[in-house]
Formats: sequence, C-alpha cells, structure tokens
Amino acid sequence: MTPRVGFIGLGAMGAPMAAHLAHSQCLHQVYNRSSDKSAAFVAAHSGVAAAADAAALAAACNVIMLCVSADADVAALIEQMLPVLQPGSIVVDHSSIAPNTARRLATAVADQGAGMLDAPVSGGVEGAHKGSLSIMVGGDAGLLQQVTPLLQCYAARISHMGGAGNGQATKAVNQVLVAGIAEAVCEGLALAEHLQLPRQALLEVLRNGAAGNWFLDQRGATMLADDCQRGFKLELLIKDLGILQHLAASENLVLDGIERALADYRQCQQAGDGAQDISALIRLKRQQILAKSDA
Amino acid sequence: MTPRVGFIGLGAMGAPMAAHLAHSQCLHQVYNRSSDKSAAFVAAHSGVAAAADAAALAAACNVIMLCVSADADVAALIEQMLPVLQPGSIVVDHSSIAPNTARRLATAVADQGAGMLDAPVSGGVEGAHKGSLSIMVGGDAGLLQQVTPLLQCYAARISHMGGAGNGQATKAVNQVLVAGIAEAVCEGLALAEHLQLPRQALLEVLRNGAAGNWFLDQRGATMLADDCQRGFKLELLIKDLGILQHLAASENLVLDGIERALADYRQCQQAGDGAQDISALIRLKRQQILAKSDA
Repeated sequence: MTPRVGFIGLGAMGAPMAAHLAHSQCLHQVYNRSSDKSAAFVAAHSGVAAAADAAALAAACNVIMLCVSADADVAALIEQMLPVLQPGSIVVDHSSIAPNTARRLATAVADQGAGMLDAPVSGGVEGAHKGSLSIMVGGDAGLLQQVTPLLQCYAARISHMGGAGNGQATKAVNQVLVAGIAEAVCEGLALAEHLQLPRQALLEVLRNGAAGNWFLDQRGATMLADDCQRGFKLELLIKDLGILQHLAASENLVLDGIERALADYRQCQQAGDGAQDISALIRLKRQQILAKSDA
Repeated sequence: MTPRVGFIGLGAMGAPMAAHLAHSQCLHQVYNRSSDKSAAFVAAHSGVAAAADAAALAAACNVIMLCVSADADVAALIEQMLPVLQPGSIVVDHSSIAPNTARRLATAVADQGAGMLDAPVSGGVEGAHKGSLSIMVGGDAGLLQQVTPLLQCYAARISHMGGAGNGQATKAVNQVLVAGIAEAVCEGLALAEHLQLPRQALLEVLRNGAAGNWFLDQRGATMLADDCQRGFKLELLIKDLGILQHLAASENLVLDGIERALADYRQCQQAGDGAQDISALIRLKRQQILAKSDA
C-alpha cells in the first residue's frame, strides 16, 4: 500500500513527531482537538492539510497515528473513526493508555478489517524533537513492518514487545522506572542542596558514575535552578501511575514504589505544579527532608 | 615532590585501581590486611613491593592511597600511620565513610604536617577496571592538584567538592541515587517478568528512553538471568546507607527513600544475599509484588 498518513494530537510530543513525518514528505493530514494547533502546523508545513475531525482524517488516510493523553480520548477517537476506517488501514496509537484498553480497541479496529498497534514512546520532548524516541510496540508483527519506515522518522529504537497491549504494558514498566528514578534523583539533589555542595561539580561527578541516568542528564541543571517549566507534565505522570495502579489491581500485584510516587506527585499537583515537569518533585523533597526540623 | 605511592586495600575496587597505577609505573608499595591478595598483586606487577603493615608502607611512601570498607578500618589505618607520616605526605582515602569521620581524620593528619583528601569513587568494578571512575574529592585544592596525575590513572572524572568531608558528603548523595534507582529498576523488571515481556527487547527499549540509567545498562541483563554474583556487594550498600542514616540524624533530616531501601536490603541480607551484587534486590521485589496473592 502507498501510505497516506494522518496524525491526530499535536501536543508537546505529537507536534514534533508529526513534523518529522512532514519533513520526510510522509504526512498527508493532521487533526487536533483545539484547531489553533492544527492551523499553526499546516501553516508551517506545506502539503499537509488540517482535517475537520477524526472521521474525515480516517476517511482520507490509511495510516493513522494518534498521540493524545488518556484512555477516554483514544477510545472516543477510535469510536469516531470506526465507521469510516478503510479495510487494511493501520491505526498506530502513540498515547500511553492501559494495556486492557489497548487490547479492547485493537479488537474493535480488527472487526472493521483494519489493524491497530499500541506504540507508546519514551525519550521525552527532547527525543521527540531529535527524532530519537524509543517506541514499544504491541500488535501484529506484519503490521509493524508496514509502518516501520514511518516510525523511523522519529524513533531511534523500535521494539516489538508481543501482541496487542504489550506495548502499553512495556510503557507501564518504563514509567515504574521513570517515577522511581525521579524520586531518587530529587531526594538526592535536595540533600545535596542542604549540604551546600557545589552544583556544577556535583552534576558532573554524579552523571559519570553508577548514579548516572537520563533524568539527571536532562533535568539536573534545570531543577537545581528551580526551573521545571519544560518537559513531561507531572499530571501526565500521575495519569500513567494511575494506569499502573489499575494494572496492579487487575493482576493482584503490590507496587509500593508506585504508591509512594503517586502520593508525592499528587501533593505536587495540589501545590499547583501539575503542569510543571516531573522534576518539580524536588520542591516537595526539599520540604520532606526538613520534616523533622519543622515538627 | 617525587611521588612514592603506596596503596592500601586490594579488594574488588582497590586491586584494579592499584593495577592502573602499577601499569603507569607509579606504584611503589601495596598493603592488604589478608596478605594473600598483596602477594598475588606483587607477583603480577614487577617493581611493586608488599609492605609488612600500614606503618611500614607510610614510612616508605609520601602518597598513600586507601581503599577499604568502613569508618573503623580507615581510622585504624590512619592511627597506625600517624607516627611515621612524613611532613608533606598526602593520604588519599578512596573508601566510603561518614563525612564527619573524614573531617576528624583530616585534622589528625594535618596535625602531623601531612595532608589528607577524602576521595570516594563511583562507577563500579567496571569503572575501576576500565580506569573510568568518577572521583569526588574533599580537602585542599593544592593537595588535589599534586595527586591529580596519579588519580587520572583510574579516573575519567575528578571533581573537587570543597573542604574536608565534602567528597564523602557527595558520595552519600550519590548513594541516595544508586539505592533509589536500584529500587525503581528492580520493581520495574520484576513487573516486566510477571507480565512476561520479552527480555532483550525490553532492556533495549527501556535503555534508550527516559528510563535509561547506568544500573540498567550494567545489570539489567544479568539480573533478568538471576545472576547477581559480580558487582557492588549489597552489604557494602547497607554500610553506605547507614552512613546516610547517621548523616540524616546529625543534620536532623528525613530521608524516606533511604529508610525504604535499607529495610529492603536488610531483608535481602537476611535471605543470604549480603555478598551478592545489589541487583539481587530483584529477588525481594519479585516476592513483594506478589504479596497480595500470597496473603
């Protein structure tokens, strides 16, 4: 098939991903719930049209990428597109949603003679801009093969994780690490601030040893400057941790680290930092480590 | 001064570090509490002699590196060496001990007209073998400058963190990250095992995204194979976390992540894994996530 690609969801991740497709002359249409973003996108990328709605995009395209926020958003979009999905079309969902939702939607799409891949990403807004995302894919290997050249426009790594839902299950595992690493880095840096260690030397020495990690590399300097504006919104991690809570409940599992991170991030959200990067957690850690002094 | 270098403590870290000095023709004497290790070392490195004890080494050398386990070990060695330390000699302590102990010993050494640097390392046994360690140094900048060419035999990064004790304070911060990252990675991989995600694809996709970290890179594959024999002994991390507990008490701080990690690692130790790498924590996490099913 000759792919006619549509991209739905031009947020902090979706916009740069769609731009990579456009730069490779691979993008046909875009759609975004608030039309100002799609208008700005098509103005910046000639040859790309803005669809009136998801159904119009699905009728005009045979590869449909989604990159939106939550289970309900993905489900609503799929429901709108189902009646017009062409047989053989492929829906690639880059959103992070529950594995069970992904499986249910994949079945609904398959019932129309089309195919669906759950394909959540990791690598942050930096990875989206650089085109170096890590994509974890659940679904049929043949479908993945068909869209791989497209995904390579914004991915450095594409891993097939098994059947429908396994991409989302992998993303859930990824977020266990992301949330727990942020806890560790924020607690450590809050302690370092308290001990008045020199910042630049601290970051360099930590990054080079066994404590080295992506989050420290990308967010260490900004969080020590209390600048948490750019990056992965804390309220989106809360959503992802909610997915993990439901996954744990359905599998009868205990995920202590997730419960701890969720309690922390909800406090950050209540303090007004929901739209800040997850590194804003350091503000709570600065308070938590001093809890005894305040008591 | 022309350095005559002695190295005390030929353990998993110290032996490869001393070997780098020997290969650079910079090592004069070694000493190790159990003499089999020093005998093996001098047999493998011509031109290096084994000292009978720490005092003999200190009398024959003017740069003395230490790489042993605990506060009491370092304090005992310094006490033995104090009477014979030559004025202008420099003691470089690569052990991980409490910042307050490091400050006290630095004062005692300075009272003899010699100098001391606290210079704990990070980067694991891999870093020691590759000569790519990260060294965090507390003490006088002029002393550090004198020994920098020697430290570069096994370090990729040497950061001066301030006065005496600040190297150890930085190592304490480093271990907050190391312990917390291990918690996150072990919980995440235990979940991935439960969800039966394919191992190789999992590791590759996690490493490439926002969850990427040194511990996953170095220990991910072995821990999924339940091989935790090589690396950083769990009982040594327990010692380091004890240093953090004392630091927290003396500064009136609360370090929740440390309390949680310490409780976990003590359980691992009680299960007989004290001499295993810290990645053996995954064995506990496999049980913890199933706690509800067992109940």
